[in-house]
Amino acid sequence: MSEVSENNAAVLTRLRRIEGQIRGIHRMVDEDEQCMDVLTQISAVTKALQSVAILMLEGHLAECVTNAMDDNTVDMNEKLSEVTAAIARLVRS
Amino acid sequence: MSEVSENNAAVLTRLRRIEGQIRGIHRMVDEDEQCMDVLTQISAVTKALQSVAILMLEGHLAECVTNAMDDNTVDMNEKLSEVTAAIARLVRS
Amino acid sequence: MSEVSENNAAVLTRLRRIEGQIRGIHRMVDEDEQCMDVLTQISAVTKALQSVAILMLEGHLAECVTNAMDDNTVDMNEKLSEVTAAIARLVRS
Amino acid sequence: MSEVSENNAAVLTRLRRIEGQIRGIHRMVDEDEQCMDVLTQISAVTKALQSVAILMLEGHLAECVTNAMDDNTVDMNEKLSEVTAAIARLVRS
Repeated sequence: MSEVSENNAAVLTRLRRIEGQIRGIHRMVDEDEQCMDVLTQISAVTKALQSVAILMLEGHLAECVTNAMDDNTVDMNEKLSEVTAAIARLVRS
Repeated sequence: MSEVSENNAAVLTRLRRIEGQIRGIHRMVDEDEQCMDVLTQISAVTKALQSVAILMLEGHLAECVTNAMDDNTVDMNEKLSEVTAAIARLVRS
Repeated sequence: MSEVSENNAAVLTRLRRIEGQIRGIHRMVDEDEQCMDVLTQISAVTKALQSVAILMLEGHLAECVTNAMDDNTVDMNEKLSEVTAAIARLVRS
Repeated sequence: MSEVSENNAAVLTRLRRIEGQIRGIHRMVDEDEQCMDVLTQISAVTKALQSVAILMLEGHLAECVTNAMDDNTVDMNEKLSEVTAAIARLVRS
């Protein structure tokens, strides 16, 4: 399995778990559980989503750099602007 | 329908939509879509989760205050410490 | 010293410290220190600012509730909308 | 002026402005201004700090890639791990 697809497999596993966590939160609200406990779970899922984003970003940066080193025609400035914009969205969300 | 259950109904609808968005992200990664597009979706879901948390917090604060005004034996300091701790977790996540 | 002014004194002390931290970051950039070290400092100041915000919010919530219990003409819904909007800004920033 | 020092100059200007904003918040608290207005200012400074961090990160990524392309002995994996750790701290703060 290549490094990219290994990374993807890890991302998919985590997304599956996050989907289950969201369903758990739905059930908690449905059963009128304590608001504070629901908020704790929402914070946990938010953190889990951020970790998935960082994992993807790490894989993407490595891929960008490898491509740039193999192929001089890649416009690295454009790639980096794209990556920076994605980081900015994550930091601000 | 009481104010509390109206709020809960709105929260449940949003959680259902978020669950669908997570499944959408899973499919995007599975089909090897552009990393940048996946990250944009993750930022959107993170924002949606934060909105759910704020909606719940608003309902909870209103309930706390109503209870405190109806019943003088409620320990308001304890309630407020709980709420502040939940806000802190949200701000830091 | 009243509870409000005690809280304010704590906030002022922290803000003074944060001002010093910003000056420290300025000096680090000026002296071309490692980018990674500067970013670590910026993360620390961001966290410190969030803690100040949460400290202020806690004091404000306590004040709101005390006022509402003393004076029935206070429009609690309006107050809570204001507080929720402030929390939303903090969570999203 | 090189690209790096241009970036640094922009960072320094922003940090100077942020220092002034922190002093402004200090004065607001000292003069007992509305809590909600202070919180709005704190959110604004937090956003300004995040923008500085992203500006620095952008400069750093560009530098890393340029160095890697000029010098094959640079350990790119190590650099990327460092950058990812810094991004993770920013996203979580």
